[in-house]
Amino acid sequence: MKSRRDFLQKISATALAVPFLSSAKAAGSSFYEEPYEGPVLKVAILGLGSYGTRVAEAMRDCKAAKLTGVISGTPSKIADWQKKYGIPAANCYNYENFDKIKDNKDIDAVYIITPNALHKDQAIRVARAGKHVICEKPMALNAKEGQEMVDACKKANVKLLVGYRMHFEANTLEIIRMRNAGELGKVMFFQGLSGFRIGDPGQWRLSKELAGGGALMDIGIYSVNGARYMVGEEPVWVTAQEVKTDPVKFKEGVDETITFQLGFPSGVIASCLSTYSMNYLDRFFLNGTQGFAELQPATGYGPIKGRTHKGELNLPHKTHQTVQMDEMSAIILQNKKPVVPVDGEEGVKDLRIMDAIYEAVRTGKKVELG
Amino acid sequence: MKSRRDFLQKISATALAVPFLSSAKAAGSSFYEEPYEGPVLKVAILGLGSYGTRVAEAMRDCKAAKLTGVISGTPSKIADWQKKYGIPAANCYNYENFDKIKDNKDIDAVYIITPNALHKDQAIRVARAGKHVICEKPMALNAKEGQEMVDACKKANVKLLVGYRMHFEANTLEIIRMRNAGELGKVMFFQGLSGFRIGDPGQWRLSKELAGGGALMDIGIYSVNGARYMVGEEPVWVTAQEVKTDPVKFKEGVDETITFQLGFPSGVIASCLSTYSMNYLDRFFLNGTQGFAELQPATGYGPIKGRTHKGELNLPHKTHQTVQMDEMSAIILQNKKPVVPVDGEEGVKDLRIMDAIYEAVRTGKKVELG
Repeated sequence: MKSRRDFLQKISATALAVPFLSSAKAAGSSFYEEPYEGPVLKVAILGLGSYGTRVAEAMRDCKAAKLTGVISGTPSKIADWQKKYGIPAANCYNYENFDKIKDNKDIDAVYIITPNALHKDQAIRVARAGKHVICEKPMALNAKEGQEMVDACKKANVKLLVGYRMHFEANTLEIIRMRNAGELGKVMFFQGLSGFRIGDPGQWRLSKELAGGGALMDIGIYSVNGARYMVGEEPVWVTAQEVKTDPVKFKEGVDETITFQLGFPSGVIASCLSTYSMNYLDRFFLNGTQGFAELQPATGYGPIKGRTHKGELNLPHKTHQTVQMDEMSAIILQNKKPVVPVDGEEGVKDLRIMDAIYEAVRTGKKVELG
Repeated sequence: MKSRRDFLQKISATALAVPFLSSAKAAGSSFYEEPYEGPVLKVAILGLGSYGTRVAEAMRDCKAAKLTGVISGTPSKIADWQKKYGIPAANCYNYENFDKIKDNKDIDAVYIITPNALHKDQAIRVARAGKHVICEKPMALNAKEGQEMVDACKKANVKLLVGYRMHFEANTLEIIRMRNAGELGKVMFFQGLSGFRIGDPGQWRLSKELAGGGALMDIGIYSVNGARYMVGEEPVWVTAQEVKTDPVKFKEGVDETITFQLGFPSGVIASCLSTYSMNYLDRFFLNGTQGFAELQPATGYGPIKGRTHKGELNLPHKTHQTVQMDEMSAIILQNKKPVVPVDGEEGVKDLRIMDAIYEAVRTGKKVELG
């Protein structure tokens, strides 16, 4: 924890802002200036659902990453993707045989975009096949599972990254730069509101078994993670309250609405909302003794809008998943250090807090984080 | 509690909006159309500090209320006010002799604007002198004291009102109208952020003895009260967390920053912040299944700015204290029923919640409200 803060504080204001401010390229374009002559990360996507499709579409504009393979249990989806993205049959796998990617030089990494409950075993299989793992968030159902993934990837000597696309978002990074430069004074308060009104009651996100919980796992995690990167510290205590207005849609173990508070070592307090029952909620607010910074929308697919006591932030929108995959290529292939980490340890930190939120709801007590 | 909700829900959309929407009068003007020929409430102000001065200045524009007397421990202040507001010597009192207002037909009501710890005894003395009591908020140090004031005023057959100026504010009332008309759908969430960075460490607001607490008593009360009138229900449970970053300025019993949550019978949850250590905080946000309403600033002296899912609210600003005093005249002299109550019982409801917030901070437990 200490090292992350130190790292963030060492980044100079200019160094952080330049890659974004110096670019005036259109949305969807890579952050690399053309012509790009560096290494290219060859990626297979595991799980061809709607978010997988979004990532695949965004990767069309990547310079440093390329979609080269697919893993799916649905042959018709594989056929569609082959046609759409020009994927050769040799790079197509199903859930039974994908351990064979071990021998496929056309695949460097696998991006896991499946229901949460499947992440752990799939990630461990990918790691054992000697491929780097990119895993959608939440990386697992709880911190213990997340740690198993970290350990497995370490043992297999592959990298493990979590799909934290906001860690590369320009307005977000500009606020982190301002905070580190002292432009907000001493940070005192963070507020995160994360939620939407969920539709189809039959989807896997509303199954305790597949999702590991409810809104907190899926959307509340943005406020958990956002609290950490906006404040720039790790919380030391958690309190939380749950309300459920629709116990039919939100069954036992599937949270509808949770408010939670995080206390940080410096005295910063974060007050957050996670919900599946309301729209109009996607806001981060960071307040310090000398100024404030706000993002609204804060974590949607963009454009993200930022505002501070100095006025509006007008950093150009780029498709988050395009930037993320180009950045992840640099992290995996060139050992680039991102401003805000996206590695497995980062994912475990969020899961530890989410475990504590559920415990605080269950016990009604403040949970201290060691 | 039930009756208040029923009352609010009975108000038709049109009836509520008309007095504000139909008026295009300038800020500071009375809500009465000229010429005003109704009764005029003759008011003495007790406590001639900065807020007392603000009220006196605002009352210059009142049609139905008039500043006719003063009560102060400082002779030079009395002399100043006599000159400034044309107050005869016969209507000037000090803290020793003000029980004599009993015999003064030029005074109908006394507006108490002194440190919180003095309210109770002063209110009871005013009531015993047979005059109506208007008391600045918080009406007392705790609910028990507040109830004593209610009882004393009832016994003396005088009215007791609390200085809830926001209960008459046009944008606020428009949002209440929208909520009651179902335009937000089912209300699900309220957020109140109330705070400012307090200056002079020697002021009475930072004395446990005089203020009865810290930020919660002075500014957090806006979020407590706002949660109730924005949601339109009474909370059934309270949780709260405190942080203190400056224990020199904020001594034992004087709260710097408290986050608190209120649970309501329908499942609405309110998440609020009360602080003396940050600026940029004056926001209410009410979220429902079909829409939202936001006020920012929400409780400052104005202009208040409102925004909903339908767009901006552009209700004309009028000086809050002018409107409040004209409305209170109508409540006292003509038995007018305000949309949101401003009576002593209303003040006690807030104090019960604030008592519970302090208890929740102290015990770390959820406090159920009977």
